[in-house]
Amino acid sequence: MSETGTQRRTRGGGRAGAAKRRGSAAIEQMPWRLPVNTDRPTEPLTPEGVEAIHDGAMRILEEIGIDFLNPEALEILREAGCKIEGEKVFMGRDFVMEMIAKAPSQFNIAARNPAHDITIGGNHILFGNVSSPPNYFDMEIGKKVSGTREQCQNLLKLTQYFNCIHFAGGYPVEPVDIHASVRHLDVLYDKLTLTDKVMHAYSLGKERVEDVMEMVKIAHGVTEEEFVQSPRMYTNINSTSPLKHDFPMIDGCLRCIRRGQAVVVTPFTLAGAMAPVTMAGAVAQSIAEALCAIALFQYVAPGCACVIGTFTSNVDMKSGAPAFGTPEYMRSTQMTGQMARFYGLPMRSSGVCAANVPDGQAMWETSNSLWAAVQSGTHMVYHAAGWLEGGLIASPEKFIMDCEVLQMIQRYFEPEIVATGPEDIALDAIRSVGSDGHFFGIEHTQKRYATAFYQPFVSDWKNFEAWEASGGVWTAERAHLKFKEILAEFEAPAFDEGRRDELAAFVARRKEEGGAPTDF
Amino acid sequence: MSETGTQRRTRGGGRAGAAKRRGSAAIEQMPWRLPVNTDRPTEPLTPEGVEAIHDGAMRILEEIGIDFLNPEALEILREAGCKIEGEKVFMGRDFVMEMIAKAPSQFNIAARNPAHDITIGGNHILFGNVSSPPNYFDMEIGKKVSGTREQCQNLLKLTQYFNCIHFAGGYPVEPVDIHASVRHLDVLYDKLTLTDKVMHAYSLGKERVEDVMEMVKIAHGVTEEEFVQSPRMYTNINSTSPLKHDFPMIDGCLRCIRRGQAVVVTPFTLAGAMAPVTMAGAVAQSIAEALCAIALFQYVAPGCACVIGTFTSNVDMKSGAPAFGTPEYMRSTQMTGQMARFYGLPMRSSGVCAANVPDGQAMWETSNSLWAAVQSGTHMVYHAAGWLEGGLIASPEKFIMDCEVLQMIQRYFEPEIVATGPEDIALDAIRSVGSDGHFFGIEHTQKRYATAFYQPFVSDWKNFEAWEASGGVWTAERAHLKFKEILAEFEAPAFDEGRRDELAAFVARRKEEGGAPTDF
Repeated sequence: MSETGTQRRTRGGGRAGAAKRRGSAAIEQMPWRLPVNTDRPTEPLTPEGVEAIHDGAMRILEEIGIDFLNPEALEILREAGCKIEGEKVFMGRDFVMEMIAKAPSQFNIAARNPAHDITIGGNHILFGNVSSPPNYFDMEIGKKVSGTREQCQNLLKLTQYFNCIHFAGGYPVEPVDIHASVRHLDVLYDKLTLTDKVMHAYSLGKERVEDVMEMVKIAHGVTEEEFVQSPRMYTNINSTSPLKHDFPMIDGCLRCIRRGQAVVVTPFTLAGAMAPVTMAGAVAQSIAEALCAIALFQYVAPGCACVIGTFTSNVDMKSGAPAFGTPEYMRSTQMTGQMARFYGLPMRSSGVCAANVPDGQAMWETSNSLWAAVQSGTHMVYHAAGWLEGGLIASPEKFIMDCEVLQMIQRYFEPEIVATGPEDIALDAIRSVGSDGHFFGIEHTQKRYATAFYQPFVSDWKNFEAWEASGGVWTAERAHLKFKEILAEFEAPAFDEGRRDELAAFVARRKEEGGAPTDF
Repeated sequence: MSETGTQRRTRGGGRAGAAKRRGSAAIEQMPWRLPVNTDRPTEPLTPEGVEAIHDGAMRILEEIGIDFLNPEALEILREAGCKIEGEKVFMGRDFVMEMIAKAPSQFNIAARNPAHDITIGGNHILFGNVSSPPNYFDMEIGKKVSGTREQCQNLLKLTQYFNCIHFAGGYPVEPVDIHASVRHLDVLYDKLTLTDKVMHAYSLGKERVEDVMEMVKIAHGVTEEEFVQSPRMYTNINSTSPLKHDFPMIDGCLRCIRRGQAVVVTPFTLAGAMAPVTMAGAVAQSIAEALCAIALFQYVAPGCACVIGTFTSNVDMKSGAPAFGTPEYMRSTQMTGQMARFYGLPMRSSGVCAANVPDGQAMWETSNSLWAAVQSGTHMVYHAAGWLEGGLIASPEKFIMDCEVLQMIQRYFEPEIVATGPEDIALDAIRSVGSDGHFFGIEHTQKRYATAFYQPFVSDWKNFEAWEASGGVWTAERAHLKFKEILAEFEAPAFDEGRRDELAAFVARRKEEGGAPTDF
């Protein structure tokens, strides 16, 4: 337990800490750590069930085919021996499995701060911020509004601040007050200066993904030769379910893998809408859509870093609205986890809810999805903090509430909780207290009390009377106050001034050049 | 899947349904069912860890001893060969294990409505209402108030109404407007007339527990000979941790087991207060406190129905306040699950939170505890609906919100979600839709859409704009509205008039006799 002891002593002041911890710190949070998921995964599929979904996915690829709306990909796959009809690609299972076998089951992504490098795969479970909502809600505004750069910056500050957030996802809210042609330049400048965690690029056209790669190179202070050696960023793409890959998504991935960067392929198969109403069918379709892209990438760059994503949920059959954090969502995530292990690929899932405000429903739906991530052996948990309304709203209160849950999951995996050495069984302590005392004051307790238990930062454990006397504040309002306190104390992470200037110059130059086309 | 199909067709109108389903029903809920927990339990302890906790528990019993403040129990245990020093009992592990081996790993408890009989043990996971809070909160009152009979009746109506509540626990709120000497008579009359589910008796003095047994006999319309043959009710006791069993608790259990009724033994070991600060120590102590009572009961009535309970959590080391739904709570529940399987005993845990109001914190803490119940292989989940403030407050809104989560857990265990037959993989459906359609209208979807997915009753899946247009109501307020609707449509379950009159006459007579002493 000595390692854990050492790690816990860094609470409140590790070099990897987001902001400096002071006596006045807004919250006392857990230290940066790459949590290790020690739980045996929950596996609802029998071996025959795994085979059935695998066979279903293979037959989709062999018999039904997937559209690749990308001429370059079609040419490569034709060369690789796949049957092509128009834009439809038919892939044999031998080819798919041969290609998939080249993918690593584990890889690292470097951050500009080496203390924030991450490992994807193995038993790690890592969390990223909410990505890509076009709208924003907070308790002060009290309604849904279009995202702005300032809101995006504030959510990036939370991304950096919380040690339980391991990687930066896409824009935590889409800053629609910045023109789309240059938005990626401004937000990436903000991301690279306000955070020092692992970066993400949208695959929305050549210019965007290549600009991000250049900016990451500058921020890391590396040459092209160094950059291409191992991942320093990643992109995440969605297929256009059913059975279609769009041009820019595949294009962006090809640009990334050819320069050594990582890709996450996440079909969005809502059962009953873009996929069969049966969960096994929705999972099989999702697997097929993901594997054919990963097979392409492995053919182009054998051994490149790929993650298989899942976004299989269901619709509300009364309204057609997407549902999240449902029992069906949990089981499909677990099933996908079994399939990811079958293929030897790292896996991504998400923290999700359909709720519109940071209330009870938001937290039971999100809890369901986060425990499904744990149960499925997920390695990357996207949208783990801040998501509302099926991903259409980002909320700082929800971000902070989610981080409480994420910290509890991190703590849940600390081996000291389940240690059973003689000092843990504590027979001497039990003997000394006997049947007429209590354990508050004894040495066994005193030696351990500071780190024995999870310490919350937004949960209120006071009794009702004390809670009422302190204002009777409900969780979402408490989270809002924490949000304000964190913003007030936030300090941007250290950044080499030369690199920062170079980054600013790059942004200025690219803006002069007009940024990226907006005809996507 | 045919059984599931049949069961699902009973949705909205099974004979076992709580209230009659009509077009105007407040909610469309899932049918009564005894959910089967098909997940492999989460087991944080190695086999050596299990042995270490077992050995710790045995050494507590052998070397440190447990106080039994019950002369009859002391006499029995002396006769059984245990060493007795004053009120302290030392039990050898051979004796404990020999006695524990007599306990059934599974048993039934009959309800007065046979459709609501339950099986404790096996792979069943069953849910009971919140029990014993002295206080009440609802959104209309808006503050914490002392419990009343009317509030208790309303919560009993919810207990009956929701098919996902399988057994009645203790009083869902303590009706302090009824004098303590006759409270059990009035509440049991209410429980037995407003619900037809499995009954509970408090072990708070001879008169109370025996009155309840008489009332259950009357309600079931059985003779004493029939009554003693198998459980028709149960009691739940807590040890007075550390290391003590009080007089009335043991007395009540002895009265129950001698007449064939079931007992649940639940130590309340808050790590850092009444138990060691280390979770393995708190679990070992809890196991020791529970096993010595169960050993006593098995010696007295070999093969009697016993459940081992856990209520191991931790305190907030800053304030001493109890914490619930923490990572430490989850792990100790899982560890206790491993120990319960080691001893071959059915297990009880709880749905718990420290939150004071039905908000986000309430739901993440409760979700954590309910998923821990699933992960631990818990058979009886006490307090599964309606608990706030560490058990000091009952809330109808929280009850209804919790029932949404319980229904999702029930749905989560339906095998159809993870079925992988050809119709589930749905290759023909995928082929027919291809890459340019959607699945809404196709026959494969149409045939299944009515029952394909979990249908919520208090979750709101509308988008923000539609949600706002319908009033922008947060979850707790929506739950309050459902509470009112359910009360308005509630119909008490059928009850033989003769038995009801006999029950009323029993209550009247016992009140004339003065009820039960109140010097407990």
